[in-house]
Amino acid sequence: MKILVLNCGSSSVKYKLFDMEQKSVIAQGGVEKVGLLGAFLKLTLPSGQKVQLDKDIPEHQTAIEFILDTITGAEYGAIKSLDEIGAVGHRVVHGGEKFNESVLITPQVIDAIKQCSEMAPLHNPANLKGIETIASILPNVPQVAVFDTAFHQTMPAYAYMYGTPYEAYEKYGVRRYGFHGTSHRYVSARVCQFLGIKPEGTKIITCHVGNGGSITAVKDGKSIDTSMGFTPLEGLLMGTRSGDIDAGAVTYLMDKEGLDTKGISDYLNKKSGVAGISGLSSDMRDIEAADKAGMPKAVLAMSMYSYKIKKYIGAYTAALGGVDVIVFTGGVGENQIGLRAQICKELAFMGIELDEKANDTKGEEIVITTPNSKVKVVVVPTDEEFMIASDTIALIQ
Amino acid sequence: MKILVLNCGSSSVKYKLFDMEQKSVIAQGGVEKVGLLGAFLKLTLPSGQKVQLDKDIPEHQTAIEFILDTITGAEYGAIKSLDEIGAVGHRVVHGGEKFNESVLITPQVIDAIKQCSEMAPLHNPANLKGIETIASILPNVPQVAVFDTAFHQTMPAYAYMYGTPYEAYEKYGVRRYGFHGTSHRYVSARVCQFLGIKPEGTKIITCHVGNGGSITAVKDGKSIDTSMGFTPLEGLLMGTRSGDIDAGAVTYLMDKEGLDTKGISDYLNKKSGVAGISGLSSDMRDIEAADKAGMPKAVLAMSMYSYKIKKYIGAYTAALGGVDVIVFTGGVGENQIGLRAQICKELAFMGIELDEKANDTKGEEIVITTPNSKVKVVVVPTDEEFMIASDTIALIQ
Repeated sequence: MKILVLNCGSSSVKYKLFDMEQKSVIAQGGVEKVGLLGAFLKLTLPSGQKVQLDKDIPEHQTAIEFILDTITGAEYGAIKSLDEIGAVGHRVVHGGEKFNESVLITPQVIDAIKQCSEMAPLHNPANLKGIETIASILPNVPQVAVFDTAFHQTMPAYAYMYGTPYEAYEKYGVRRYGFHGTSHRYVSARVCQFLGIKPEGTKIITCHVGNGGSITAVKDGKSIDTSMGFTPLEGLLMGTRSGDIDAGAVTYLMDKEGLDTKGISDYLNKKSGVAGISGLSSDMRDIEAADKAGMPKAVLAMSMYSYKIKKYIGAYTAALGGVDVIVFTGGVGENQIGLRAQICKELAFMGIELDEKANDTKGEEIVITTPNSKVKVVVVPTDEEFMIASDTIALIQ
Repeated sequence: MKILVLNCGSSSVKYKLFDMEQKSVIAQGGVEKVGLLGAFLKLTLPSGQKVQLDKDIPEHQTAIEFILDTITGAEYGAIKSLDEIGAVGHRVVHGGEKFNESVLITPQVIDAIKQCSEMAPLHNPANLKGIETIASILPNVPQVAVFDTAFHQTMPAYAYMYGTPYEAYEKYGVRRYGFHGTSHRYVSARVCQFLGIKPEGTKIITCHVGNGGSITAVKDGKSIDTSMGFTPLEGLLMGTRSGDIDAGAVTYLMDKEGLDTKGISDYLNKKSGVAGISGLSSDMRDIEAADKAGMPKAVLAMSMYSYKIKKYIGAYTAALGGVDVIVFTGGVGENQIGLRAQICKELAFMGIELDEKANDTKGEEIVITTPNSKVKVVVVPTDEEFMIASDTIALIQ
């Protein structure tokens, strides 16, 4: 069975085509700049070679048609006919309190996703366009929605409620939802398989750190707290996002800079984070290099970035009543050896004993602590698309 | 030597008169509703009896004159003449980055406090009125300013910087300052005396929890991180303050409720916290009673309140690289036996072993863990006014 996974953003459509019998990716790529000048489809061939195909792409429908043409085409095709696609799985950002797991898409599901759009105005409408386009082109192919928020629906109220008046929750749904749920679910399950332990009775902290980032406390396989909140702005310092900030500083900056709510939202989401601190780059590889070169604001950005991760690990250790396993994943978590080493060393008091040699690897599934380490620290490359494909096949069978 | 300590708020003036040789309070009380209808001075006599004196009090000058008349008066007087007052110590809320310790007040100091007023518009101007009034009535009496923020000036940049653009710090001073510094300084020093240990080499977490609340990580006697931030809104859930909240939720609520920056500031500072969650009261004694009675929203408020404290203890244990001593102080910290017990039990994994019998006390200086407990948990009643008086006498001698 072939499963197509789509991740539709406001101006992009990423895709992966899985052969589930082979457990392999047979086609992958993405359309960028949908609705903008200079749109293109960039695909990665099985050889690893990348190909860019330029084309005017006014909207999501054209993008998806172009993707379907390409994966069935003579030159770069992976399948002969669209009939081979058994199902399509979609990443959907916000499921609110309506979805605590992946679901087969029905008209009722589409309505519910629409109702959550106000809380994710850039993402859910794009996700819906993807669903509607597939429905029009492949009306008989089942579709599945996999939500970024679903895994975190197990949080207890004392973890997800904010200290705002109760009416803010009742009237507007203001609470912590959390994001990156598919990644946290995947790596927290995968690390148990890898270590040969059961999720039940295990206390895991999953650190999905990259350009965006969030940390989740997982008990018995369930999310009990996570650092992103009502929106993906809260929590860790990120590439261009501020993370945690005093609401009093938010209003002060609005007054000082003359910003309205849209203006401060852009300021905190797009101009802040390590990019805003360093004045250099939102890419942690650049920050790491400048940190090593001794550039003061990059040193500061790097130290703030790792300090925040360390504090969340501490907070969630308390929330869990201890921790057995810490997982690093995401672009930074999988690849920044120095950052992982620093955090592990600074948390030595918790019984973490780093294995320097094991840690000296990038993007590999590996335990980076010694056999004596009381807490196991493990790198697990995330695979959200595979998780979406797996949910999709499970739901249609 | 007699030292007068003044704490001037926007509509109140609290005072304590210390006899420093006797280390005792010889007069104390406060004027309430300055500039409002129904103003009065309420004082506590040495016997513990409370007396209320009604009087029209249009502004701070009248309030302070009334206090000085009362403490030298025939009926409730504690001293014969104002000449006995050797110095006056003032609580000043915001010292920005200008003050890392208490100082003798000079014209330059007054200017610097004025410069910090924009960051504490309700407090610093009131503090300055107190200073100016004393200068006019007692021109030869030295005055000392003791800042809420000063103790936290030892925080490293990676702890005090927010993830906003670096310019926000340079242009507007937006960073974490922290508050309750006089209390955190007092209890962190006092607990070392009490336990017969040295601050150097000791890792302490001080939990000042009450209607307002903050938690501080203290290493070698110095604050290295604290939960309040640019303003006293950030951090723990409080009586009417939200504490930590996603900035994305702040702007969402502004849009939904049609609030400007002043409006959302009032909403988060005055209508939120346990009062906003429970719909019942901002007083933790009421919340505790309603929690015990099983009222669902009070149960929620109570669990959110304690969960947040637990998470900060975890985060600061990570920041400190372990913890030796945890201190509870403030109205709730000193008196809510159940809350202390719950937190200690939930943190048993850290090596905390509660002594139930020792914990069954209110407002007493006492170790509430067993001799075997790896981490000592201690209740230390705070005494900010005594700390202000001590700083004052040290600076004038």
